[in-house]
Amino acid sequence: MIVSGYAAPAAKEALVPFTYEPAPLGPKDVEVEITHCGICHSDIHLIDNDWSTSVYPLVPGHEIVGRIVARGDECALSPGQRVGIGWQRSACLQCEQCLAGRENLCPTQQATCVRHKGGFATHIRTDSRFVFPLPEALESAATAPLLCGGATVFAPIRRWGVGPGAHVGIVGLGGLGHLALRFLRAMGCRVTVFTSSSTKRDEALHLGAESAVSSVTPREIRAFTSRLDFVLCTVPARLDWVGYLQTLKPNGVFCLVGAPPGLIQFPASLLLTGQRVVCGSDIGSPGVIREMLAFATEHRIGAQVEIVPMSEVNAALARVRQNLVRYRMVLTN
Amino acid sequence: MIVSGYAAPAAKEALVPFTYEPAPLGPKDVEVEITHCGICHSDIHLIDNDWSTSVYPLVPGHEIVGRIVARGDECALSPGQRVGIGWQRSACLQCEQCLAGRENLCPTQQATCVRHKGGFATHIRTDSRFVFPLPEALESAATAPLLCGGATVFAPIRRWGVGPGAHVGIVGLGGLGHLALRFLRAMGCRVTVFTSSSTKRDEALHLGAESAVSSVTPREIRAFTSRLDFVLCTVPARLDWVGYLQTLKPNGVFCLVGAPPGLIQFPASLLLTGQRVVCGSDIGSPGVIREMLAFATEHRIGAQVEIVPMSEVNAALARVRQNLVRYRMVLTN
Repeated sequence: MIVSGYAAPAAKEALVPFTYEPAPLGPKDVEVEITHCGICHSDIHLIDNDWSTSVYPLVPGHEIVGRIVARGDECALSPGQRVGIGWQRSACLQCEQCLAGRENLCPTQQATCVRHKGGFATHIRTDSRFVFPLPEALESAATAPLLCGGATVFAPIRRWGVGPGAHVGIVGLGGLGHLALRFLRAMGCRVTVFTSSSTKRDEALHLGAESAVSSVTPREIRAFTSRLDFVLCTVPARLDWVGYLQTLKPNGVFCLVGAPPGLIQFPASLLLTGQRVVCGSDIGSPGVIREMLAFATEHRIGAQVEIVPMSEVNAALARVRQNLVRYRMVLTN
Repeated sequence: MIVSGYAAPAAKEALVPFTYEPAPLGPKDVEVEITHCGICHSDIHLIDNDWSTSVYPLVPGHEIVGRIVARGDECALSPGQRVGIGWQRSACLQCEQCLAGRENLCPTQQATCVRHKGGFATHIRTDSRFVFPLPEALESAATAPLLCGGATVFAPIRRWGVGPGAHVGIVGLGGLGHLALRFLRAMGCRVTVFTSSSTKRDEALHLGAESAVSSVTPREIRAFTSRLDFVLCTVPARLDWVGYLQTLKPNGVFCLVGAPPGLIQFPASLLLTGQRVVCGSDIGSPGVIREMLAFATEHRIGAQVEIVPMSEVNAALARVRQNLVRYRMVLTN
């Protein structure tokens, strides 16, 4: 068979139609006919080779929804099942991390669209152990962004035990930020959104934030000094690190899911006083993705999306690059 | 009554004999006749006014062992009991932190020798709820340093769930570091000590470390890349932050209990990849101190100390300032 898709021929170039013959279907693999694929900022980093890991031609896409059309002999999923696929395509499943259910930290993990062809295409063949059946109630377009963006914010919320009554700060209201807001509201948390966009401040309140303030005005950040239990930073931007760390209550946690450029810098006293925690989180394990999908089903949570035919992928990418999308772009076949 | 002790008359000055009349014994207070008092580096910071919080004349001392000689009416302890007193002398006991058993994070907490007269003296009057009965088996001189130094290292070990089989790095082998090593060995952990002193490397092995390497040689630090579950930094020194963060395994924790000068600096990618955690810890709650004293009793853990009469306090302080003590100086009355 031949897969048709869109590939970047070289770093920072526009995507062009591209066909390839996939690797033979392994015994644990499934072949998925793709119906939807979200556009994550990581896809743009890959197209641009920002992480020096890209191999061209590069087919992006790792927020995939589709239907299984073929399966290997040792595969627990069935043809016809509607499924989702996220950033991770495989892991060794034997190391300390994998055996502890932290496959996302496996040193030999592979990614869906790094050195493999991703979801901006008609089909994908991948390891069925990283393919997730979708409950009927989840709508495909709104669910595609959950597979990477949703897992990325849900995982640290669970890891750090954020629960009812907690006051949480979200820095940035984009694909990740708006999903974090929806999850946290459903968990009974109070949410303050920090955003550089004045229009997004109103949108944040509409989406259920208790308050929304400027992410770049020191005075507005400092108004939250010692008030937040958890801050989730979803933007890859330089921040007022001292101001944000000071928003934490004792034992509070500041968690990055986006990688800002340059160095994070703060005085050590900010960690000692109040026992603050600074950390990062990297996608989510298969177990967390299953838990997130169940939570999203129970609480009817999906992404707010713009839907564009895959043939218009370059126009869609341009809107993502310009931060015009509210809040996630999804391509459809 | 009149208390006799030693006080710094002004910042950075030698201590001089000093007497004072203590505040009346409150209903929850005890009066303790001091037999032993450890010298912690914090005492030197207070003498030198490094934290701009010192009020003179300043009586240092917050690793106190003694016997109760008087008590208020609403006090659960009894005259004759041998007790210990650490850094914290009181808290509101009503705020969110206090009610959660984290009295050490109470915003209105008070310290034993900040704006109060400390343990370099014959007696102290203080809130009995921050005074800890000592089991018979614990020897006074070896136990005094547990009250601050021991609690400071024991608290983060417990908070972060460090347990049997974990490979832990300790940066610095001083008062805190050698106690951390003893606790961790008793818990069944593997310990690597990072120290700038070549003689202390041998001492670390003698104390039960699995390995001991230079804390300042990048090559020796990098030999532990991705190998450690937890790193406890006990030294107030600028470090190779990137090198030390890289020693952490996925989900590993780097915890400061000493405050290095200047800024902590590292690229955000070091937090995202491997979901590393950077944090600080600030003494220990009364609950943690009780747990530590029980653990020390069970596992016969005490500090290795040098004992000097309180009248020689200035000579003792000089040895602490020169880092000559193995590993904690204790003054006796």
